[in-house]
Amino acid sequence: MTKPAIAVSITWNAEPWLRRFRAMAPGREVIEVTSPDMPLPEQYYLFAWKPPRALMHRTPSPLMICSAGAGVDHIFLNDPPRGIPITRIVDPDLTGRMVEYVVLHALMHLRRMTDWPAHNAERAWKTAPFAAAREVTIGIMGMGEMGQAAAAGLMAIGFDVIGWSRTARSGLPFRTYAGDTQRDAFLGATDILVNLLPSTPDTRGLIDATLLRKLRQTEVFGAPVLINAGRGDACNEADVAIALADGSLRAASLDVFVTEPLPAASPFWSLPNCIVTPHNAADSHPDAVVAAVVEEIRRFEAGETLKNPVDPTRGY
Amino acid sequence: MTKPAIAVSITWNAEPWLRRFRAMAPGREVIEVTSPDMPLPEQYYLFAWKPPRALMHRTPSPLMICSAGAGVDHIFLNDPPRGIPITRIVDPDLTGRMVEYVVLHALMHLRRMTDWPAHNAERAWKTAPFAAAREVTIGIMGMGEMGQAAAAGLMAIGFDVIGWSRTARSGLPFRTYAGDTQRDAFLGATDILVNLLPSTPDTRGLIDATLLRKLRQTEVFGAPVLINAGRGDACNEADVAIALADGSLRAASLDVFVTEPLPAASPFWSLPNCIVTPHNAADSHPDAVVAAVVEEIRRFEAGETLKNPVDPTRGY
Repeated sequence: MTKPAIAVSITWNAEPWLRRFRAMAPGREVIEVTSPDMPLPEQYYLFAWKPPRALMHRTPSPLMICSAGAGVDHIFLNDPPRGIPITRIVDPDLTGRMVEYVVLHALMHLRRMTDWPAHNAERAWKTAPFAAAREVTIGIMGMGEMGQAAAAGLMAIGFDVIGWSRTARSGLPFRTYAGDTQRDAFLGATDILVNLLPSTPDTRGLIDATLLRKLRQTEVFGAPVLINAGRGDACNEADVAIALADGSLRAASLDVFVTEPLPAASPFWSLPNCIVTPHNAADSHPDAVVAAVVEEIRRFEAGETLKNPVDPTRGY
Repeated sequence: MTKPAIAVSITWNAEPWLRRFRAMAPGREVIEVTSPDMPLPEQYYLFAWKPPRALMHRTPSPLMICSAGAGVDHIFLNDPPRGIPITRIVDPDLTGRMVEYVVLHALMHLRRMTDWPAHNAERAWKTAPFAAAREVTIGIMGMGEMGQAAAAGLMAIGFDVIGWSRTARSGLPFRTYAGDTQRDAFLGATDILVNLLPSTPDTRGLIDATLLRKLRQTEVFGAPVLINAGRGDACNEADVAIALADGSLRAASLDVFVTEPLPAASPFWSLPNCIVTPHNAADSHPDAVVAAVVEEIRRFEAGETLKNPVDPTRGY
């Protein structure tokens, strides 16, 4: 009997992905989806980034939809069919890269590295005093695998870490807050806010002027800092840009935006206290992503529990 | 009986130090040394940065000379008297700050952050592929307390770490190399070279064109990177500048220089792949430094082993 195929529908060059699926899933047809109504085999898995609604609702349906990344908002925005399992990528490579990004940017802001280009251009031998990591509290929103791994990395360097999540978490080795009722207390104890939340109706526009005003301002660290490596639409971008311009946010590192690539007209490009990165905080290696998808397919076919199933009622 | 005094001889504003010694060493006279032949009590400790030779050779001698930092080259350059204990500062705050610096700059070069100012100025939404930390080997020269702590911080983020020291170390949780015979093997396995060596006759000029050519060049990481947070005179600065200009060094982070403040004419200021910081990698908090000195004095007076004695034959 023929093994189910793998249909690849992504918004960038598919060739490296097709090549890897062919190498790592031998005996399966691997197909690039070039239009939602092109012929596909009877049984197939859909590996996708921003899959069109028409593709997801074909008959016969895909056996499973595998997001090409950790986020699945790009799938839920296009109304996926009910009753079909959806999985996402949470592999050690991707998680490790997110830890690198979060620790890097936390340290850059601890050491005020947004001043570095100007200081070097001015040949300024200046020592601004800065806090030690242990004097700074990093508040992470989103306590999934990435949030917990980022917390561990930050704590290893000496930062104080607290976490917030929609639903309460217990047993984590740092102080945690949960739900709407504890959010203000979390924000009021946070010097550097790290957003790792998925994009859901609850999180869109969450980081606005009202929220930013609730962050802590201490003598040793100064005005608060924002690091957004979750999803761009978590931010009210106009509010964030105003806060960066007036100094109520001391600095920011933004990897994700409402519109990507970030338009040339965005104020974030020219704010000297804002570090823009091109949504590459956790660009996982394609080998690791494909290995994770192949493993989910193996589990699916063996009737085992999936490793990273998405709960459609939560949207992540 | 009067307790021995504390004489403070440093090259910058002494007031914050005098204030802290008075608060943390009650019952002792605390004196700012304003000239090498000013009157001093019969018994005193010398807390010093770059103490003049004449000051160290007064009669009566200081009971102990306490360096105001981790390095003691500034004392040995001025020929300290024999037979008088010399101590240096290795406190958790200073070590922690060095770990912050090393991890920050390793991650900045992993993620090619020296490109960030130009990319943001050009509004360039560019994703250069970069290695994961686990694919990169950081070679640390200097396996003292700071070198070992930096290694632990780097490993916590996922980097591969190796270490080199003058004399062999055993029991460290990573691969170590020792002495002249193993130095080339160490360099040949190193993508990012971190210098944490003290300044001694053996280390001056060590990092020259010949040494830099021995560093590893891999497809995944590219040309090697130098991070110098030890002492400026470890570098042949002309050789390092040429290597940065011709790309045989991909980038560098330099915190220490042969002449400080770094002269405006130095090429390091204008090389876009060189991050200059003003010798503040591990600016310890004065409270922590003074607490460490007061503890050394307590041990000295109780006849206990000093915490961070300097071996005058090694010079560190």
